[in-house]
Amino acid sequence: MRQSTILDVARAAGVSRQTVSNVLNSPGRVRPATRERVQRAIAELAYRPHASARRLRTQKSSTIGIRLDPMTDGISGSVLDRFLHALTEQADAKRLRVLLFTAKDPDDEILQFRRLTAGADVDAFVLTSTFHGDPRTEWLIDNALPFVTFGRPWGIDDMNDPKHLWVDVDGYSGLREATTHLLGAGHRRIGYIGWPSPSGTGDDRRRGWREAMAEAGWSEADLEPLHVATEEGVAQGADALHRLEAAAGAIDAVVCASDSLALGALIAARGRMPVVGYDNTPIAASLGFSSVEQPLDKVAEGILELLTGAHGGRVSRDGEQVSDPRHRLIAPHLVVRDAPVLSGEHS
Amino acid sequence: MRQSTILDVARAAGVSRQTVSNVLNSPGRVRPATRERVQRAIAELAYRPHASARRLRTQKSSTIGIRLDPMTDGISGSVLDRFLHALTEQADAKRLRVLLFTAKDPDDEILQFRRLTAGADVDAFVLTSTFHGDPRTEWLIDNALPFVTFGRPWGIDDMNDPKHLWVDVDGYSGLREATTHLLGAGHRRIGYIGWPSPSGTGDDRRRGWREAMAEAGWSEADLEPLHVATEEGVAQGADALHRLEAAAGAIDAVVCASDSLALGALIAARGRMPVVGYDNTPIAASLGFSSVEQPLDKVAEGILELLTGAHGGRVSRDGEQVSDPRHRLIAPHLVVRDAPVLSGEHS
Repeated sequence: MRQSTILDVARAAGVSRQTVSNVLNSPGRVRPATRERVQRAIAELAYRPHASARRLRTQKSSTIGIRLDPMTDGISGSVLDRFLHALTEQADAKRLRVLLFTAKDPDDEILQFRRLTAGADVDAFVLTSTFHGDPRTEWLIDNALPFVTFGRPWGIDDMNDPKHLWVDVDGYSGLREATTHLLGAGHRRIGYIGWPSPSGTGDDRRRGWREAMAEAGWSEADLEPLHVATEEGVAQGADALHRLEAAAGAIDAVVCASDSLALGALIAARGRMPVVGYDNTPIAASLGFSSVEQPLDKVAEGILELLTGAHGGRVSRDGEQVSDPRHRLIAPHLVVRDAPVLSGEHS
Repeated sequence: MRQSTILDVARAAGVSRQTVSNVLNSPGRVRPATRERVQRAIAELAYRPHASARRLRTQKSSTIGIRLDPMTDGISGSVLDRFLHALTEQADAKRLRVLLFTAKDPDDEILQFRRLTAGADVDAFVLTSTFHGDPRTEWLIDNALPFVTFGRPWGIDDMNDPKHLWVDVDGYSGLREATTHLLGAGHRRIGYIGWPSPSGTGDDRRRGWREAMAEAGWSEADLEPLHVATEEGVAQGADALHRLEAAAGAIDAVVCASDSLALGALIAARGRMPVVGYDNTPIAASLGFSSVEQPLDKVAEGILELLTGAHGGRVSRDGEQVSDPRHRLIAPHLVVRDAPVLSGEHS
């Protein structure tokens, strides 16, 4: 039987989707008579508001749709391509098909969801590049379509919000590890180059640097001049390092939110300090600078397990649930390289 | 009506596929009685041995299968990903679906062809990384499945061989343009770093350098020490430049078969000479060195046109066919950059 959606409830009760949502989340805002009507419809239709953890009915010969993000010229843009490789390889091994599509924006992507499921071309979706208030996840939940996101919902309480199934890489712990590594190597004035707030991913990574520095004794006020925000890009990274040095004076090392920013900083630094990137792209390996690696194989594995229901959450000896079966937060790891090609230019 | 395949003929005549192939290609090797039986089956089944230019019957809601090559750490590996982006975007606009799969080797890929067409998941294929004597194209021809390759057959007479539909980028003219550009800028001793022979793509690119140099007056013998062959990779490119200088003495500039090799050469050259790469990857743009760009949008466009039969070959005023409707050879172009970041290190 098809699972009831919020739209079914709205239709049955003769109210808007928003009213049903209000009854569920802020019942005080709804008139008692309306509230009762909606609650009756919810009961009759056996609607479960957080039942979006719908999984693929079968593991065999189902097709998973995934949007191929527009091509970017950036160095870090290849991360989603690498994820696609990992996902396709593992899906193939499970006899799941991966179908690609493109979309200009989230609304266009929703149109594609509609088209691909209407034609029964696709049974489930994998979403990337999630953001706070993402209309795509809301649409998929309302339409009771199985999906998993690579990226958390970026809401107020990500970890416990059962809104949908997700897998993400813990950028916070990645930047924390990178910063701690530099502190351990004797560096003290460690700067940070990242993206402007608000940015789910960006703010999370900056927090990793900030907390590692705070543990090393830095006060909030002293950390202020040690970080700069810039848009993504190599030229932007070079410019950001100059701004950082202008504001903070001499610095010992710098950690960045991406390899693109790191490459720019590395070029601008001309061997004056170590630079650590994020994503461990081929350019980091080629030029020999350290970078935080996202374990994309594990991300793909987690996504397919959540999608097919192969992962039901771990249960401890005394029967208590110890890992949430609705999400996975995967720790990245720092790949340390000590002989950057570009740092050698003054030797 | 389904088109007859070589297997249908073999079955009807009660012989092996190889015997049918022999009747077609070396009839002297087949006994007259057998030959006659095969020829009768060919006539009865209206089998056309070179009718592999089969196209998708409909342009709408067909699914194209493409193998996602194993992920490489190389810088130039991203070219096939960029092609996939272009193909998916243009397929989407035509309401064609793109389905991904992986395969360990050509035989495994043929198994996937079998599986994907048996389940009617895929209607046509796009093949990449073609090579001489490719068993995949042979299998698809025998099974009368529509396909187009990105990459020519690399046979003896590519241009006129109607064996199958293909689109390729003219690496020869790309390297020729790069070399001519350097000659025009006043460089004389221009070296070449490429891949070992035999390699369809590699030999083709080397020929572009060689012919441009020959036109500038270089003899075959004098060109001998000016080129080296190495496997793909950044470290390999650096090593190759050292070998080139050891064999040829001072050189003025170097052109490479890939951006990975170019990056290695650039690092090893330390600003002593300009280096030109191939593929115009994000790293060439970031580090500011010239590179030959493959127009992947045009490749994708050509592939979809050949697949859907939208391109029927151009016909001149007097009714003569002037472009072959079975293939497209697309000219790349050199992206010139004059301020390499790494060359500035000695300034």
